[in-house]
Amino acid sequence: MKNFKSRYFEDYKIGEQIDHSVPRTITEGDVSVYLATTGSRFPLNYSNHFSKSVGLKNTPVDDILLFHMVFGRTVPDLSLNAIANLGYAGVKFHQPVFAGDTVCASSKIIGLKENSNGKTGTVYVESIGKNQKGEVILSYYRWLMMRKRNEGLIRSFKNVVPDLPQKVKTEDFVIPKNFKTENWSSQISGSPYYFDDYAVEEEINHLDGQTIEEAEHQLATRLYQNNARVHFNNHIEKDGRFGKRIIYGGYIISLARAISCNGLANGFKISAIHSGKHSSPTFSGDTIYAWSKILEKEKINNSIGTLLIRTLASKNNSEMQFPEKKDLPENIVLDIEYSILIPIKQK
Amino acid sequence: MKNFKSRYFEDYKIGEQIDHSVPRTITEGDVSVYLATTGSRFPLNYSNHFSKSVGLKNTPVDDILLFHMVFGRTVPDLSLNAIANLGYAGVKFHQPVFAGDTVCASSKIIGLKENSNGKTGTVYVESIGKNQKGEVILSYYRWLMMRKRNEGLIRSFKNVVPDLPQKVKTEDFVIPKNFKTENWSSQISGSPYYFDDYAVEEEINHLDGQTIEEAEHQLATRLYQNNARVHFNNHIEKDGRFGKRIIYGGYIISLARAISCNGLANGFKISAIHSGKHSSPTFSGDTIYAWSKILEKEKINNSIGTLLIRTLASKNNSEMQFPEKKDLPENIVLDIEYSILIPIKQK
Amino acid sequence: MKNFKSRYFEDYKIGEQIDHSVPRTITEGDVSVYLATTGSRFPLNYSNHFSKSVGLKNTPVDDILLFHMVFGRTVPDLSLNAIANLGYAGVKFHQPVFAGDTVCASSKIIGLKENSNGKTGTVYVESIGKNQKGEVILSYYRWLMMRKRNEGLIRSFKNVVPDLPQKVKTEDFVIPKNFKTENWSSQISGSPYYFDDYAVEEEINHLDGQTIEEAEHQLATRLYQNNARVHFNNHIEKDGRFGKRIIYGGYIISLARAISCNGLANGFKISAIHSGKHSSPTFSGDTIYAWSKILEKEKINNSIGTLLIRTLASKNNSEMQFPEKKDLPENIVLDIEYSILIPIKQK
Repeated sequence: MKNFKSRYFEDYKIGEQIDHSVPRTITEGDVSVYLATTGSRFPLNYSNHFSKSVGLKNTPVDDILLFHMVFGRTVPDLSLNAIANLGYAGVKFHQPVFAGDTVCASSKIIGLKENSNGKTGTVYVESIGKNQKGEVILSYYRWLMMRKRNEGLIRSFKNVVPDLPQKVKTEDFVIPKNFKTENWSSQISGSPYYFDDYAVEEEINHLDGQTIEEAEHQLATRLYQNNARVHFNNHIEKDGRFGKRIIYGGYIISLARAISCNGLANGFKISAIHSGKHSSPTFSGDTIYAWSKILEKEKINNSIGTLLIRTLASKNNSEMQFPEKKDLPENIVLDIEYSILIPIKQK
Repeated sequence: MKNFKSRYFEDYKIGEQIDHSVPRTITEGDVSVYLATTGSRFPLNYSNHFSKSVGLKNTPVDDILLFHMVFGRTVPDLSLNAIANLGYAGVKFHQPVFAGDTVCASSKIIGLKENSNGKTGTVYVESIGKNQKGEVILSYYRWLMMRKRNEGLIRSFKNVVPDLPQKVKTEDFVIPKNFKTENWSSQISGSPYYFDDYAVEEEINHLDGQTIEEAEHQLATRLYQNNARVHFNNHIEKDGRFGKRIIYGGYIISLARAISCNGLANGFKISAIHSGKHSSPTFSGDTIYAWSKILEKEKINNSIGTLLIRTLASKNNSEMQFPEKKDLPENIVLDIEYSILIPIKQK
Repeated sequence: MKNFKSRYFEDYKIGEQIDHSVPRTITEGDVSVYLATTGSRFPLNYSNHFSKSVGLKNTPVDDILLFHMVFGRTVPDLSLNAIANLGYAGVKFHQPVFAGDTVCASSKIIGLKENSNGKTGTVYVESIGKNQKGEVILSYYRWLMMRKRNEGLIRSFKNVVPDLPQKVKTEDFVIPKNFKTENWSSQISGSPYYFDDYAVEEEINHLDGQTIEEAEHQLATRLYQNNARVHFNNHIEKDGRFGKRIIYGGYIISLARAISCNGLANGFKISAIHSGKHSSPTFSGDTIYAWSKILEKEKINNSIGTLLIRTLASKNNSEMQFPEKKDLPENIVLDIEYSILIPIKQK
């Protein structure tokens, strides 16, 4: 039959290159729907006038929206039969992307590991997003637990587990071309806190909880053309693992980033996500909170610094907490470490 | 009073021409909301880069979005007092429409038939959508069951039932100007199946069920400025025919088309809807599935063919079925026959 | 901690000027989401072709969308700790705003009054919205009930209650530049009623009830970047004053205006809101109705007149009523008096 059923663990080969279908032009309409489903207040992404004043040619697309747009391309080939999205590493954001740019994506299979239960395996991929000029705009590693077509261990299968980066190097961070830090404005961002004001080990409670409605995560996830069935089909999911639709984990990243503006409003660009994990599923009706801890800080040049941040998102629990990575309580739904660019206050 | 109460059966006259109000400029924002409420993955409608590479001047608006935009114009004059939208015929799609185009609509009354219960009648209309240059962009026949103002049969009323086309002729199909089939790409569409790969009588299960939330169909229907009250007012509908709001039937056409991408991804344009019927109502919480059967196929030229397809949409039933038109089970909510353009693979 | 907790009554000083953060470029995407969440049919705001034909350079943004965009800027500094938005006065709409314009806002504290309970006070502000050229696009007075940081009356506090305008003067109304009334079209608006057709004391029932879903008001309110917590956080609000999320009062103004199109479709621009009060809270599931009474009418020039209208919005009650302002029943959720511009029919 001509429908597309996606792949099983056995269908991937080490070194295989997949050019994902359906390139996507990002538009001002997408930006509005993104804002309507997240409530971000980062000033650079919603004011053309301010963006231009700091040297950009136009309003850049929110980094996480770009991430979803690239990720959405990969879903039919990678996620339809995935049981779980196990993690991200080495997510690098390149030059800003603008409304009007068209993104496409490709992935390379870089690791395959059978699980001892004989039912599943882990697939490791490197995915790359490019714009219409062929320039890389995003690249990342991701690993997924995938169903096997046939139960049992595969004879003489050789597990290949890639060596993934613990951290994107600061020297690999991309500073937006012609960025004029001297025109950054704390009046416009609403926050007086620049690079020098943050201390390593400092904790920030971002306060603003957001309750998610079924329509909201469906609208957002369809906007990215992420068509993984668990997010949309209650007729099946009501009898599934959780008895209901599961929210796309990326939507929680969006909410966490949007909520984190309250405390990190001058962090104008994400340079890298070093690691990310959806530690528990989220469902309609859950209220998402977020808090952050500054893990490292580093000057990039005289006008821009970077903060390495661990952000946790919880559901239905507003009490700030930073448990060990290996020991996350069930209310923690997201644990990511990422680096943002933040201006150094000019005297 | 100055409010608008729409018309009753008695208010229509054979041959009457209605120029509908409120022309509408379609924007990139509309396209994004449409995508967010449907999840379509047809590549031509969401990639500017790809659209241009196949010879179009820009990204064409999804045919069904265009249909809703024209239909939305007609609602105040035709549908507010309608009890049911009985069917469509002879829906012809003309040259592609692009963001920035302004659509307006007019209708001509071509048939009137009293029903024997004395309470209702059928109104037959031909509706035409035009762009800002006055070019026809869509035309179709539709018939509705309308309330009468006064009960009883009208003295010496002469029923006029128009002779509607069973089928739009293939020679009337409009091929997009300058279309370059040689640049069509199965990598970009995600489907390897071209015109020659489909066989008459072939059946396709499109698999991907979508559960509809109240907010989603309301957002979509308001976007089209379709203000028929049954879709929006639960305070009245809770005591109405079904005890709840009814979903605009056109929203189901959108979902069926979007879902059908999984199996028909190279079917890049709808040329005609030969017949369409909303056979059962749909409500919030229902999960829509779709499946298709190829009824006919025909080469249009050396590079483009057309498939005549019957697509059925069901609610809460994922088992593919093709019952007789006259004997549709209650779970079938849509039964349409339409023709799509699909590239012929170039050697 | 670096998060933003907004201010208490004690934190405001008479004469203080607040330049609000996060300017916002209004886009065509915002217009689409606005339409999808309101269903407006005012023709000037959705047809580029018609807007240009009446002399505007492009499609103007809906006046109430502009109001929300300015209002949204002010929320972090004014509303986060507000208990209630007590009222509006002297809202003046200036020249039309178009997609692509960037709005910013500032407020001046013009009054402060302690309440005798010692727990709250009233803060009076004048807020001004400007575009990227520094031109005033909106200005208004507003007063809010604010929490005090510390209970008890403040020693030697001097209440200052400003003298707010009962009414914006007609000579202050701004007529869109180069407006060509002679090209106004009742066919396009869908209403035959011009300035001369309305009578003082005339009442209009706008008929079309709209039931609000949680996702809808959240999407709309996030679009305006209004981040007042009571609208979004059910985890807290379920134990709060009403046991659920409260809908942003401005969303009800949008619905009332959109619904009022049915009876006032030629009222193409709001010139002023003289007074406005959210008299009861609204919640998800409520159905909003609206009705209007013409209070005054005045010719502005030979081609444009103005109607001063009182519009009431109710929840879950479709029976038109015009109670005294001081004696509003609980089902009335909005009571506003405003002036619209409406063409005088040209002979």
